[in-house]
Amino acid sequence: MANKVVSACMIIIGNEILSGRTQDVNLNYLALALNERGVRMTEARVIPDVESVIVDTVNECRKKFDHVFTTGGIGPTHDDITAVCIAKAFEVEIVLHPEIVKLIEAREAPPEVMASRMLMARVPKGAQLIRNTTGGPPGFQMGNVFVMAGVPAVMQSMADSLTKEHLGGGDPVRSRSIGAYLGESQVASALSDIQDEHPDVDVGSYPFFRKDGYGTNLVIRGTDEAELDLIKEKIRLMIVSFDAEPFEE
Amino acid sequence: MANKVVSACMIIIGNEILSGRTQDVNLNYLALALNERGVRMTEARVIPDVESVIVDTVNECRKKFDHVFTTGGIGPTHDDITAVCIAKAFEVEIVLHPEIVKLIEAREAPPEVMASRMLMARVPKGAQLIRNTTGGPPGFQMGNVFVMAGVPAVMQSMADSLTKEHLGGGDPVRSRSIGAYLGESQVASALSDIQDEHPDVDVGSYPFFRKDGYGTNLVIRGTDEAELDLIKEKIRLMIVSFDAEPFEE
Repeated sequence: MANKVVSACMIIIGNEILSGRTQDVNLNYLALALNERGVRMTEARVIPDVESVIVDTVNECRKKFDHVFTTGGIGPTHDDITAVCIAKAFEVEIVLHPEIVKLIEAREAPPEVMASRMLMARVPKGAQLIRNTTGGPPGFQMGNVFVMAGVPAVMQSMADSLTKEHLGGGDPVRSRSIGAYLGESQVASALSDIQDEHPDVDVGSYPFFRKDGYGTNLVIRGTDEAELDLIKEKIRLMIVSFDAEPFEE
Repeated sequence: MANKVVSACMIIIGNEILSGRTQDVNLNYLALALNERGVRMTEARVIPDVESVIVDTVNECRKKFDHVFTTGGIGPTHDDITAVCIAKAFEVEIVLHPEIVKLIEAREAPPEVMASRMLMARVPKGAQLIRNTTGGPPGFQMGNVFVMAGVPAVMQSMADSLTKEHLGGGDPVRSRSIGAYLGESQVASALSDIQDEHPDVDVGSYPFFRKDGYGTNLVIRGTDEAELDLIKEKIRLMIVSFDAEPFEE
């Protein structure tokens, strides 16, 4: 019954996230995409565009998790150092990938611009390409590390192209959600009992504060749909027992 | 001249972020707040509500960075284990903080609800409180670890209450931004030269794709305002030399 959990770690490479200039939205997109493919995002890290940090983090995480997904740092400028760092992490040469070279040469440009663009054709030796349907250069996969763009539209295109075959995931992770205008403290004890009865499922409680009052959203996550429905019913009855009205949104 | 950089690592504790249920917005808020206080967010991690992971991550990061900021897991339910984990990380007892106890007892509730709420009065022995102006229980500081709520409005109240005196930051980190309808490949080489001339400043390039064309935003970050202005002028001249029009937004 119990699925082997396929774990993933996301590494967001980018000073612009850490400086607060840019709000990351890639983590959320990738987390949902992985759920569908039966892979669980187990950790994420946001790190700066610093070679030693990227190399060390990739090497630590690729041993610790089934898959690693990086975003950012694959453009043509001085702060785009991800490909070189992945090659160093795997201790392989960095090479020009003929397919990407062809793609880049297809669009004419002055020699200096072409030289900068050609930096985007570099991949660690032995890497496989990750399709990019937005027109730019592809991402790449090296071992269990998937290297994607940081620009959300491009990253999403790359993430969408990764199938269960690439990732070897289990059953999709599903969720049920049910809310009530009850404080977290009111439901805490009963909820803890329900969680104990279903150790393979993740029961989370999230307080909300709205103009018409405060309450709690309860979210159940797991792969067994029948079990999720059963737990949801238990929570519904628990809410009713507190004289509150369960709602779904 | 050169400021000692005060570094910070944020640890976002929460299955709901990793599952994709919730889009994190606390990292961005904290990053901007730290800039103002002369502290640089150097890394961030998103980790699940798992005791061993929280304890190990806190212990690793509190040695590696000047400050650690956690969000999430300080409510009254079974998945709120942050306070206990911080106590374990520091190898101290967990105790009821008399100020928080008083605050919680001031609002009447049935005994079972009160018992759940009282879980929020637990702090590691020796912790200082972090003010929460939203009405709920405060966060706490243990050594160089600042423990805050996950609900954005509450987290923001706590972050706002941290002053330069708590954090010992340097000069505020400032930025300048200038954009142009030029591809990253076109500016890459000239930009790299500018970065080399100013190693203490962070020059970043961020491509954009809009209906009216594609281009690049150039962002300069550092603490010396005169140097930032100088670099911005260099970049403006570089853009003009490419027959493009610089813009600011």
